[in-house]
Amino acid sequence: MKQIDLMKELHVPSDKKILMLVLDGLGGLPNKYGKTELEAARTPNMSKLCKDSICGLATPVATGITPGSGPGHLGLFGYDPLEYQIGRGVLEALGIGLSLTPKSLAARGNFCTLDPATGVITDRRAGRIATEKCAELVKKLKPITLEGANIVVEPVKDYRFALILEGDGLEEGLSETDPQKTGLKPLQVEPLHADAKKSAQLLNAWIEKAFAVLKDEKPANGCTLRGIAKDPGLPSYKQVYGLKACAIATYPMYKGLARLVGMDVLDAGETLASEVSTLKEFWAKYDFFFFHVKKTDSAGEDGNFDDKVKVIEETDALIPEIMALKPDVVLITGDHSTPSAMKSHSWHELPVLLHADNIRKDGTVEFGERACMAGGLGHIRHVDLMPLVMAHADKLTKYGA
Amino acid sequence: MKQIDLMKELHVPSDKKILMLVLDGLGGLPNKYGKTELEAARTPNMSKLCKDSICGLATPVATGITPGSGPGHLGLFGYDPLEYQIGRGVLEALGIGLSLTPKSLAARGNFCTLDPATGVITDRRAGRIATEKCAELVKKLKPITLEGANIVVEPVKDYRFALILEGDGLEEGLSETDPQKTGLKPLQVEPLHADAKKSAQLLNAWIEKAFAVLKDEKPANGCTLRGIAKDPGLPSYKQVYGLKACAIATYPMYKGLARLVGMDVLDAGETLASEVSTLKEFWAKYDFFFFHVKKTDSAGEDGNFDDKVKVIEETDALIPEIMALKPDVVLITGDHSTPSAMKSHSWHELPVLLHADNIRKDGTVEFGERACMAGGLGHIRHVDLMPLVMAHADKLTKYGA
Repeated sequence: MKQIDLMKELHVPSDKKILMLVLDGLGGLPNKYGKTELEAARTPNMSKLCKDSICGLATPVATGITPGSGPGHLGLFGYDPLEYQIGRGVLEALGIGLSLTPKSLAARGNFCTLDPATGVITDRRAGRIATEKCAELVKKLKPITLEGANIVVEPVKDYRFALILEGDGLEEGLSETDPQKTGLKPLQVEPLHADAKKSAQLLNAWIEKAFAVLKDEKPANGCTLRGIAKDPGLPSYKQVYGLKACAIATYPMYKGLARLVGMDVLDAGETLASEVSTLKEFWAKYDFFFFHVKKTDSAGEDGNFDDKVKVIEETDALIPEIMALKPDVVLITGDHSTPSAMKSHSWHELPVLLHADNIRKDGTVEFGERACMAGGLGHIRHVDLMPLVMAHADKLTKYGA
Repeated sequence: MKQIDLMKELHVPSDKKILMLVLDGLGGLPNKYGKTELEAARTPNMSKLCKDSICGLATPVATGITPGSGPGHLGLFGYDPLEYQIGRGVLEALGIGLSLTPKSLAARGNFCTLDPATGVITDRRAGRIATEKCAELVKKLKPITLEGANIVVEPVKDYRFALILEGDGLEEGLSETDPQKTGLKPLQVEPLHADAKKSAQLLNAWIEKAFAVLKDEKPANGCTLRGIAKDPGLPSYKQVYGLKACAIATYPMYKGLARLVGMDVLDAGETLASEVSTLKEFWAKYDFFFFHVKKTDSAGEDGNFDDKVKVIEETDALIPEIMALKPDVVLITGDHSTPSAMKSHSWHELPVLLHADNIRKDGTVEFGERACMAGGLGHIRHVDLMPLVMAHADKLTKYGA
């Protein structure tokens, strides 16, 4: 029996509340003093929590695999990321609050700069134009129509926009048009199987019209489409876990991921403080809270060890306020590692802290990568965390007689 | 998505070099002083390497399963040994440099001694005749022809030879003819399904002709066929990992295994010293080196604790010369355990040492079974080692957006 089906079958109601605190890109690597970002950070509140917790190290997707944000979060949410795959276009669309139907096909669009004479791409991100400029260009693209599909096009951030076609017979399985380097022309959308032909034709027709509209713009006189995909139709948190779940996040991608599994996405403002206010405000209304901290990952991607330490410390400082709400089960981890030494996501395991009733305290005294190596959870997979959290919240009944 | 497919999709080039040092049958059990062979061995160089490594214990096939050399190595190479199975006949043929096509069926042959009066086997290995005698007998078998198949027969070592039939409609799924004990007659080859009937008929016809040829020989007046199989058609290291890989081994079986996954098999002589010379000579030409040490296993099989210790020490002594080549990723482990206390392969986990950039040093100070129990890799499966090694060599890109 698959884990998702097991959860569907075994979940039972309880009045316990679960908080999943995700510090994006939490895992790190040692600096020259031999400490990771988390180990170097002063985290007295997490350390205090450790004393009544069980810790371990978690693998997001599979050993050696570096996850993108999508697979990283799907694993945390208990959906095997090697089984459920989400196109970037879908994430981008959901992240800005667009809704998808089973007839929708979503793409991530990037404005780019084309050489007017040869048509080759000279800047794949059109000089990273401002979001305002992006919105202005998208406004010009909105009037484009196609026979056989409704079109939604909306700005996302900087040079990025979301494109959704909705109509009958639109299937995924389509190549991207970004040639991945400058000096080459944008590619055509190619169907990867016969069922996707209609989608390819429509997308290519849209691109042709868009290029005509953008022709005289500077610097964004072209665009590319990537990650063209449909909503994978994941079973919802309500169906799988019986949970009334919400997401508290500041960044579109993570709101989109939460929507994919049917969480309510709360308006949580832009800061850690506003996220905590949102948590407090809605504490009575939900039994599962996905609380997302973005800037650990951003600092890691920037290679800024100290900034990552700072974000961890800022998050730690909020723990007393969060714990005052008396969550029954608290899970603290990340969706993947982003060691500042690597300036990128990585495959390294994530430290995990589980605080709840009925745990076997493992004596971990500090929340850090090496301390967690010896933790009582051992080496655990991300997909196994939700069943564990559900069990500690008295929300799973016995399997078999 | 399966791991092999994930590797095919995610691998990217890098100029880093990977060395996989396999001490065959490395894992052991404690002697009366409480130390395993590896723990008893003086291995200052491996201990030194430990300080900049992460260690753990690896399971070759599955918990409690004792692997043969084939499954043991397939796991190390990243091919799930429960999914990919290789007949002994195939290994034997490839190990002596014979090539197989999709139309080939390969068997391992054993010369044996039959009682001339009753036809029962009196010695399943014909007194372990010398390789020269084996070659002489095989020469007499070469003229045998069959309608419907070409035949290749070649000596391997001692009483063992390889037989290959090549023709249309030859399928595997065939019983062996060795009754596994003396006092019984050799069995007929039986087809295990209808598609294998033709193969069974041809093999039985060949056996009849071979027995006629061998009739008056002493002591090898008969033979048995085992492990009759086709090349499983494994995807190559180039396809799966994008690696230019070579094998440095002294024993046919391991050369054969390496060929199965498309590694170049280098002429590495007969000794550890000649293997290291070969490694140096070809260092510039490959990016993956499978370096095989056979005699740890042979000593274990012989129940010779001290000899196994000695081979481990000899291998340790070569580490500085190997590290002078500056490999970017070094993995040291074995294909399975061969505790000298058991005089056989066993199911026990293998100590693993991974030395590379971007590791989380785990503080292991000695390379040994008990030290590795507390290592940062925890308990890992053999098939997960290649993805990890690939990640540390910067040869895997991100999974998902």
